[in-house]
Amino acid sequence: MAGCFIAFEGPEGAGKSTQIQHLTRRLKAAGIAPIVSREPGGTPAGNAIREVILDPQLTMTPLTEFLLYSASRAEHVHELITPALEANKVVISDRFAGASIAYQGYGRGVPLSFITDLTTDISKHMPDITVLLDIDVELGLSRIAKRGQLDRLEQADLSFHKQVRQGFLTQAKNNPSWLIFDANQTEDELSDKLYDALYPRICAKLEL
Amino acid sequence: MAGCFIAFEGPEGAGKSTQIQHLTRRLKAAGIAPIVSREPGGTPAGNAIREVILDPQLTMTPLTEFLLYSASRAEHVHELITPALEANKVVISDRFAGASIAYQGYGRGVPLSFITDLTTDISKHMPDITVLLDIDVELGLSRIAKRGQLDRLEQADLSFHKQVRQGFLTQAKNNPSWLIFDANQTEDELSDKLYDALYPRICAKLEL
Repeated sequence: MAGCFIAFEGPEGAGKSTQIQHLTRRLKAAGIAPIVSREPGGTPAGNAIREVILDPQLTMTPLTEFLLYSASRAEHVHELITPALEANKVVISDRFAGASIAYQGYGRGVPLSFITDLTTDISKHMPDITVLLDIDVELGLSRIAKRGQLDRLEQADLSFHKQVRQGFLTQAKNNPSWLIFDANQTEDELSDKLYDALYPRICAKLEL
Repeated sequence: MAGCFIAFEGPEGAGKSTQIQHLTRRLKAAGIAPIVSREPGGTPAGNAIREVILDPQLTMTPLTEFLLYSASRAEHVHELITPALEANKVVISDRFAGASIAYQGYGRGVPLSFITDLTTDISKHMPDITVLLDIDVELGLSRIAKRGQLDRLEQADLSFHKQVRQGFLTQAKNNPSWLIFDANQTEDELSDKLYDALYPRICAKLEL
């Protein structure tokens, strides 16, 4: 398998977007231009699906929510991730399959085996590395509260977000391709630690 | 199982919507008020998903398309069909699972076993009766061409629509709960035949 596929996961407010920006900038400076994407989204159809999933006016069952994430993921894998990896690129995705296990599985109660089976069927490529930015749930939510209008998932209650965090930590503990970082440190400290951990792994995967 | 669940299927331009209106009117006159719905759609989230699926500006892989139909179906089954059947109602849906087999399976090449397995997982209730309004593909397409702007699926090429029709006919042949009607007859003739076939079956199911 060519390329290197990195997913960023974590509870709300862990700083994924900011850290993805830092990592991208530093990788570019080192001569590696990653393709940065996100879920749900990453493609035109995926972005249209994203608007449905996050619409604060809509309600939907956990199963519907999971199937919409899966539809976005199928498009993302087929149209963006697979061609990029086959061209030996680095792909960084803000969320991937681990988020479905955490949010729809641990958070909403969709059976984990159903999520895992469907995800395996639709995802030709699973991440080489999943970065978990872990943060205390109350602290993360207080960070995003400052952003203004919350989307449908951000609006869910505290116990939901605690189950989601537990879902992330359990996956990280059981899967050697996951790396856990404490997101409750300064932006610069975290950026340094992420780069130090990821750069050699990316080089090894790309055989640089 | 209480209630009676009827799905209408058929190639484009077969007259499903018109015949559903006639059947509904006649059932109401006979004292049976059906709940009429459609796929994709039938719920607020389903209607938002419908807009994504049918958007002529978007492209998507067959798998993405099927997962979007499944998301709409999961919501439809959970929020509308199941409660209505449990209240012993008649539910008439303009398209259901048979359309996924015909369009995404026969038409687009998504493996039939994958479609059947996921559909079984998400559909607590399968139709008691599926009405197939069968029509020659060119004739059906010439009917809808008069309506103006075509949606994303209606725009597909002739060979796609021929495979879809074959998918419907094969399902009808292999499944005793499907009834085939020739849609190339007058609106009134077809309406009479449908009512004569369906009314006694509905009464039997409802134990009237």
